[in-house]
Amino acid sequence: MQLAMIGLGRMGGNMVERLMQHGHSVVAFDRDPATVSKYQKLGAAPAKDLADMVRQLETPRVIWIMVPAGAPVDSTIDTLLPSLQKGDILIDGGNSKFSDTMARAQHLETMGVHFIDSGTSGGIWGLANGYCLMVGGEREAVAHCEPIFTALAQEGGYAHVGPAGAGHYVKMVHNGIEYALLQGYAEGYEILAASKKFPGLDLHQIAELWQHGSVVRSWLNELAVDAFAKDPRLSALKGYVADSGEGRWTVQEAIDEDVPAPVITLSLLMRLRSRQEDSFGAKVIAALRNEFGGHAVKGS
Amino acid sequence: MQLAMIGLGRMGGNMVERLMQHGHSVVAFDRDPATVSKYQKLGAAPAKDLADMVRQLETPRVIWIMVPAGAPVDSTIDTLLPSLQKGDILIDGGNSKFSDTMARAQHLETMGVHFIDSGTSGGIWGLANGYCLMVGGEREAVAHCEPIFTALAQEGGYAHVGPAGAGHYVKMVHNGIEYALLQGYAEGYEILAASKKFPGLDLHQIAELWQHGSVVRSWLNELAVDAFAKDPRLSALKGYVADSGEGRWTVQEAIDEDVPAPVITLSLLMRLRSRQEDSFGAKVIAALRNEFGGHAVKGS
Repeated sequence: MQLAMIGLGRMGGNMVERLMQHGHSVVAFDRDPATVSKYQKLGAAPAKDLADMVRQLETPRVIWIMVPAGAPVDSTIDTLLPSLQKGDILIDGGNSKFSDTMARAQHLETMGVHFIDSGTSGGIWGLANGYCLMVGGEREAVAHCEPIFTALAQEGGYAHVGPAGAGHYVKMVHNGIEYALLQGYAEGYEILAASKKFPGLDLHQIAELWQHGSVVRSWLNELAVDAFAKDPRLSALKGYVADSGEGRWTVQEAIDEDVPAPVITLSLLMRLRSRQEDSFGAKVIAALRNEFGGHAVKGS
Repeated sequence: MQLAMIGLGRMGGNMVERLMQHGHSVVAFDRDPATVSKYQKLGAAPAKDLADMVRQLETPRVIWIMVPAGAPVDSTIDTLLPSLQKGDILIDGGNSKFSDTMARAQHLETMGVHFIDSGTSGGIWGLANGYCLMVGGEREAVAHCEPIFTALAQEGGYAHVGPAGAGHYVKMVHNGIEYALLQGYAEGYEILAASKKFPGLDLHQIAELWQHGSVVRSWLNELAVDAFAKDPRLSALKGYVADSGEGRWTVQEAIDEDVPAPVITLSLLMRLRSRQEDSFGAKVIAALRNEFGGHAVKGS
């Protein structure tokens, strides 16, 4: 079927490729005309701007939005809205906050435009392996777009999980879990790397070994195998970890729902700590230990 | 090759089966004669007691010990020792503490008996899928036993990771990681189950979906698929989680090595909390909030 893709970054661009590989025709738009040209060469119909894109689409129009969460999604929707018709379908495939998605869906519904959310996991591996799509939205609109979802997804990697917002909600929790899994592996490998009892343990050998029959085998640990193969003690890296919001939202949601989620929370906090060059909190403790016990401190 | 297996529980019994499937001949002993008979019917040579077992073995003897960690391992070794010869090999395939293993290896070495530790992961699935074996010990003794390890292991699931104790050390950290992974999934699924915004999310559908192309796909999540298929809200279970020691040791070791491992630690603490019917600590907080602010309390 025909659809449009707005945003041809790492995720959106790969998705255009995968959609075309599966026989769909894509009208492609990005703020960067050079990127549009790149996907034009691969077979996409180029769009000069959003109005040009909308003009090229058959109705009901299906438009996949793959732009950063927050204001870019709203401004994209606001720009599109005047040229849309009743029955058109917008899909937000990015990492939007589920509550924003619920509000957008409600607003668009008053204009007769369907809003579908697709939580998308798989990263840069999705092009080759297929994505995992957690889809929320009104049943008929989702059914209409199913050929798109099954093209993008790995076999079994697509499900309609609930009404508008549910896809981003499930994806948010997915990412919260990911924080905890990553922190768990991080701590384990750090203990092995630091061991004075068994110095020089081969983390690549161990990570690879754990992929074969162990209880901790996983796709993330498979990535650890690759990382340790390239750099056995990760000495080229700084221990600095960014976040893109879903962990924070998971923690907020857990608190809103009175669910204790201490390990997901602490995994987020450890990321915050990883970004500090020094800790004011630790300075406070050092100062107070010095005050009450004369314990030694280190100067800055 | 020929070896003896001491302890025919869930793990040891399955290992005897897998060893025999791979053409090894096993002298089997268990405290329970009925269990010995069971494996005799499957082709193992039965042993009436440890002395009888030792008599049936060609030298150098290879004896796999699969009994609970701690005192049972020591008493097994003490009973065996008088009948062993220089060059014989003992393998501890259980979840012994690595420091116990190091001490046992040192002691046995003075008698010329080799001590190998095999951290063993894979649980009850190991019989069909093959185990993951993290092996520590002296190089020649390990090489001598390699046909045993490769028979038990999944392809790629055996590695000699270091000197005596290293196998149990790596297995200990493996289990520490497992605690964090389990707690991460636990919190994520609890948020989904508790959601008032999206009531009735289908955890089986979501777990299954996540196995296909998502970042959190893993063997543990595969087990979650099975668990939610049987009981969508796990209503037959009490939220009570035991532990068998390796998590505690991982936390102790992290502290010994000055490695912050907060999430593994907290995952252990959440297991402790899961076993409390009530919390004295929470009572203290309730009492103090009542004292300072007149906040309502619940009677016991």
